Amino acid sequence: MNERLAVRTRGRGLCEVTADVQAVVRGAGVTDGLCTVFIQHTSASLTIQENADPSARHDLEHWLDRLVPADDPHFTHTLEGPDDMPSHIKSALTSTTLSIPIVKGRLGLGTWQGIYVWEHRDRGAERHLLVHVSGK
Amino acid sequence: MNERLAVRTRGRGLCEVTADVQAVVRGAGVTDGLCTVFIQHTSASLTIQENADPSARHDLEHWLDRLVPADDPHFTHTLEGPDDMPSHIKSALTSTTLSIPIVKGRLGLGTWQGIYVWEHRDRGAERHLLVHVSGK
Amino acid sequence: MNERLAVRTRGRGLCEVTADVQAVVRGAGVTDGLCTVFIQHTSASLTIQENADPSARHDLEHWLDRLVPADDPHFTHTLEGPDDMPSHIKSALTSTTLSIPIVKGRLGLGTWQGIYVWEHRDRGAERHLLVHVSGK
Repeated sequence: MNERLAVRTRGRGLCEVTADVQAVVRGAGVTDGLCTVFIQHTSASLTIQENADPSARHDLEHWLDRLVPADDPHFTHTLEGPDDMPSHIKSALTSTTLSIPIVKGRLGLGTWQGIYVWEHRDRGAERHLLVHVSGK
Repeated sequence: MNERLAVRTRGRGLCEVTADVQAVVRGAGVTDGLCTVFIQHTSASLTIQENADPSARHDLEHWLDRLVPADDPHFTHTLEGPDDMPSHIKSALTSTTLSIPIVKGRLGLGTWQGIYVWEHRDRGAERHLLVHVSGK
Repeated sequence: MNERLAVRTRGRGLCEVTADVQAVVRGAGVTDGLCTVFIQHTSASLTIQENADPSARHDLEHWLDRLVPADDPHFTHTLEGPDDMPSHIKSALTSTTLSIPIVKGRLGLGTWQGIYVWEHRDRGAERHLLVHVSGK
């Protein structure tokens, strides 16, 4: 079973989608199985991160932005703006796809884990995810 | 089929779990299928790395530790200790989930590949994995 | 269903395999399901990246090569050549496995997404992938 989700991001940073993915799992009526989330973009990605303290997500975003700064003079792929090439690199360093076991009808996340879309462009955008659920 | 594994790590670095995951696959009695490993933490992660020469894993651990040092003055998420925020970043840069095809009843790993839990906290901890097996 | 693909790379950089993976999906006759690609190496990896402008892939490769230079004096794992240890690190920072939902008989990739083998050794090699397809 595949379902497409649209997520509206509001600029660079992490946007939680745990409840949206859990709703797809619930709708599929699967008790034991596997849920795969796939993002259909190369300038935004997915990550599973701590969902408790927002300072962790803030530091994560800022650290990655220092690692891959927008003003790198080596970049040649600059037609789509200075934040485009860093977005592709940040996507390659994080995840385009995540697979999470379903246990007793729920995503088998740890206590402090949340699923996030990680927007790498300066402006937000409508981002599309495919959520695949298999099992019984 | 889902099974939960507990792994005791002994401080920062890679801890091999290939045999544990292979045992779950064997127990499931699946000949052709897919095995997904998921770690329920955001300060430890998963990786598939060379299982031959320990120096490769040593260099890998040290390289990542130099990339994400614990004393970064930009960090604001410091309540859980100086090794906590680097652990979240290292987890985001590596893998929370791995999917490995099962071929003839065995994990389809290459000759030199092993599955590792990558502990990012200074002290070891009991870490939990979910292993999902599907197929026939 | 599992199929093994051999890919010949021509030195460091990205080598597109989208059509090869799509051909396995077509051959499996699956309309809705999941396709998992796994690379059986620790010195080459997988990524989903922009398939439009080659300059994006060029910048990506050069950026990662600057992040993980071959002449790092800290490396102790050097017996297999100066490009071996950087290859393991680059593999750990990118992906060994990718899972892509299958929608209406085709890989559910976004408009600008392609699947690539990322060769990290200076010389190309024959690289092996396992492609697993499930669904109906």
